[in-house]
Amino acid sequence: MKSTPVKGTRDYLPQEAELRDHLQNVILETYLEAGYQRITTPALESSENLDKSDGGENLNLIFRVLKRGRKLESALSSDSVSEKDLSDMGLRYDLTLPLSRYYSNNRQNLTDPFKVIQMDRVYRAERPQKGRLREFMQCDIDIIGNSEKDAETDLILTTAKALTRTGLKNFKIKLNDRRILRAIFNYAGFDEDKFDHLAIIFDKLDKIGLDGVHDELLSEGFNKDAVEKFTDLFRGEGLSLKEAASLEGAAEYAERLQNIIDTVNEVTKERVKLEFSPSLVRGQGYYTGTIFEVEAEGYSGAVAGGGRYDNLIGKFLNENIPAVGFSIGFERIFGILSEKMTRSEYRKKRIALFFSTDESDLVPAHIQAEELRKNYFVSVIRRPKKLGKYLGKLENAGFDGYLVYGEGTEPKLFENRG
Amino acid sequence: MKSTPVKGTRDYLPQEAELRDHLQNVILETYLEAGYQRITTPALESSENLDKSDGGENLNLIFRVLKRGRKLESALSSDSVSEKDLSDMGLRYDLTLPLSRYYSNNRQNLTDPFKVIQMDRVYRAERPQKGRLREFMQCDIDIIGNSEKDAETDLILTTAKALTRTGLKNFKIKLNDRRILRAIFNYAGFDEDKFDHLAIIFDKLDKIGLDGVHDELLSEGFNKDAVEKFTDLFRGEGLSLKEAASLEGAAEYAERLQNIIDTVNEVTKERVKLEFSPSLVRGQGYYTGTIFEVEAEGYSGAVAGGGRYDNLIGKFLNENIPAVGFSIGFERIFGILSEKMTRSEYRKKRIALFFSTDESDLVPAHIQAEELRKNYFVSVIRRPKKLGKYLGKLENAGFDGYLVYGEGTEPKLFENRG
Repeated sequence: MKSTPVKGTRDYLPQEAELRDHLQNVILETYLEAGYQRITTPALESSENLDKSDGGENLNLIFRVLKRGRKLESALSSDSVSEKDLSDMGLRYDLTLPLSRYYSNNRQNLTDPFKVIQMDRVYRAERPQKGRLREFMQCDIDIIGNSEKDAETDLILTTAKALTRTGLKNFKIKLNDRRILRAIFNYAGFDEDKFDHLAIIFDKLDKIGLDGVHDELLSEGFNKDAVEKFTDLFRGEGLSLKEAASLEGAAEYAERLQNIIDTVNEVTKERVKLEFSPSLVRGQGYYTGTIFEVEAEGYSGAVAGGGRYDNLIGKFLNENIPAVGFSIGFERIFGILSEKMTRSEYRKKRIALFFSTDESDLVPAHIQAEELRKNYFVSVIRRPKKLGKYLGKLENAGFDGYLVYGEGTEPKLFENRG
Repeated sequence: MKSTPVKGTRDYLPQEAELRDHLQNVILETYLEAGYQRITTPALESSENLDKSDGGENLNLIFRVLKRGRKLESALSSDSVSEKDLSDMGLRYDLTLPLSRYYSNNRQNLTDPFKVIQMDRVYRAERPQKGRLREFMQCDIDIIGNSEKDAETDLILTTAKALTRTGLKNFKIKLNDRRILRAIFNYAGFDEDKFDHLAIIFDKLDKIGLDGVHDELLSEGFNKDAVEKFTDLFRGEGLSLKEAASLEGAAEYAERLQNIIDTVNEVTKERVKLEFSPSLVRGQGYYTGTIFEVEAEGYSGAVAGGGRYDNLIGKFLNENIPAVGFSIGFERIFGILSEKMTRSEYRKKRIALFFSTDESDLVPAHIQAEELRKNYFVSVIRRPKKLGKYLGKLENAGFDGYLVYGEGTEPKLFENRG
């Protein structure tokens, strides 16, 4: 039998699982405090829904569940069998499709606007590589049914607070609006039908620099005049939100963004770093307005991201339903913080209470354990034959100390040992 | 598109999700306090492991994941394609197989004995029926590497405390030992090779009574003398643990059970109801010694169960590793308590704080919300046009009150409205 987990998935050691629980609790409590309500949905969704969803590339990464019994027999008995014949459901690749289905299924029992929390596992058959898992956690908040900018403000305030409370330091939130991006592309004179391709290259600005973007646009055959006009916008100090506002068609959205920035600054007394970033693109095709992303110092890539997607939730209902969401990349936060935090920062110390080999003191040991549990996590364990050696193992396995029953009331902590 | 969840799975409304979170937290905290350590494992396991595991009937209920890409093409191109060719992994049907694999994979980093918590979702393609889900939660604690009876005592103390803390009332724990069961069957003179069949019928004692068991044994062709000798044991007051101890081969195990019962009674000052139940069988074939089950008043069927399974964990390591576990049937606890508990028993009240339509007070409303969050979950929402109608909806959706910004510092609670 195989003792390693399946490719792209992970076992978590007790110390890791404990930090994950802690971080998830901090995030969940912050979301709840801000009045968001948690829902849970199944990890399985019907193929019909998965295939019709706006998942882009992710649709190629779905783990599909094999049909069973007669359904499978019938599928296999046909002349040419395809993947789709063999499966009628699959594991969700994100939490947005389930949210959309859920909203349609339960709308009459939900508030309007609906401020919702989803924290759960999703599955993608990614090519396994460092830091990329096939099973991972997403922590999302979304506001459904509010097209106004206060929704963005609320999501940003709440996400910034959650990130701060996890212990993440020196992060900043970058903001843009897809409609400002369009105004910039229009101003430069690019063809509308090339905006998507253009956006993909522009998105690399932080990585390859303005000259890199300039050269790649030319080598990809974009119009030279447009490329010059476009890149000139970002020379020197870059493009400010004020300057962006002067571009045709951008004024309304720049003002909207400025209002969000001002409100967050006033509420947080500028404790949250927030900036307009005209080169912020965000991959997903379904964003329609504001987009945001969180960068943490010393970490390349976003630790959180989101935006407005006004055409997606309504799909099941054949209605236009405005929606905006902010998702914390939990695995990234966990990766950063697992190297920085020790469990005594967030949890009671864990100790072993040893009863004697003949069990004569098992009952009073359990009774003392109950007392000690006011201040410690207490595991009642038979005294091992080689105590010294065993203590080293306990310490490695995430214990903070021990007490031999009968030798007093306070445990001996490992940090005081040597 | 389909707005209902896939067959046998459920969407949880915010009020339900909140109670589930609460109950899971209570159980998890109790386990942690008792020194157990939580681990997490992937929901996916390799087919190789799943197929070789001791899952009995559950092996027929595995959701198998379809192979992808070239692996799938290659499987489909062969002359006769079977289910097993099409899949090389599947969703776990319980948490015991993953635990066994995990222990083998990570043993060097774990304590010995390893006292472990698993709380996670499992998947079984059961025929959908009331109260039976295809995706459901299990809450397990296990002790690996301890063959002594103190392990059973620890699991029982901890599980009883967790159940009490969830709010479950009037439950009792029934205990038996597979080896006592064998001694009873031997005493009556049944053939060894019929013990499994016999156990299945005897397990129905609570449902069909002693006469029912008697008649079914006869109609199934069991030896008449043995059936009479067997059923005579349980006439009148039933078979006490003391009486069971006098049967050949049962003394050691009866004493062991008595010791567990005495220890739990002394530690809890008899606050936990505990009794020997000779007709307790527990379905799973892998149990080797002690078995236990929790019954709650007014609820048919067990709300928790477990036992000793000394031959299972070592499979991956080709070693004999003793293990014993106790599992809370979370969905059953949730089902019982969701009808009895209201959220104000376990959570801060949730209120809406309304800012005005023109947003002029959005900033001070957010600042007041921060103050109120010391005592409430606060959702900052635009004042709706029809406030009265909206408040009714808020209340239905799980809110406890509201405050219009500018109208004081304390929210108006719905329970005080009319």
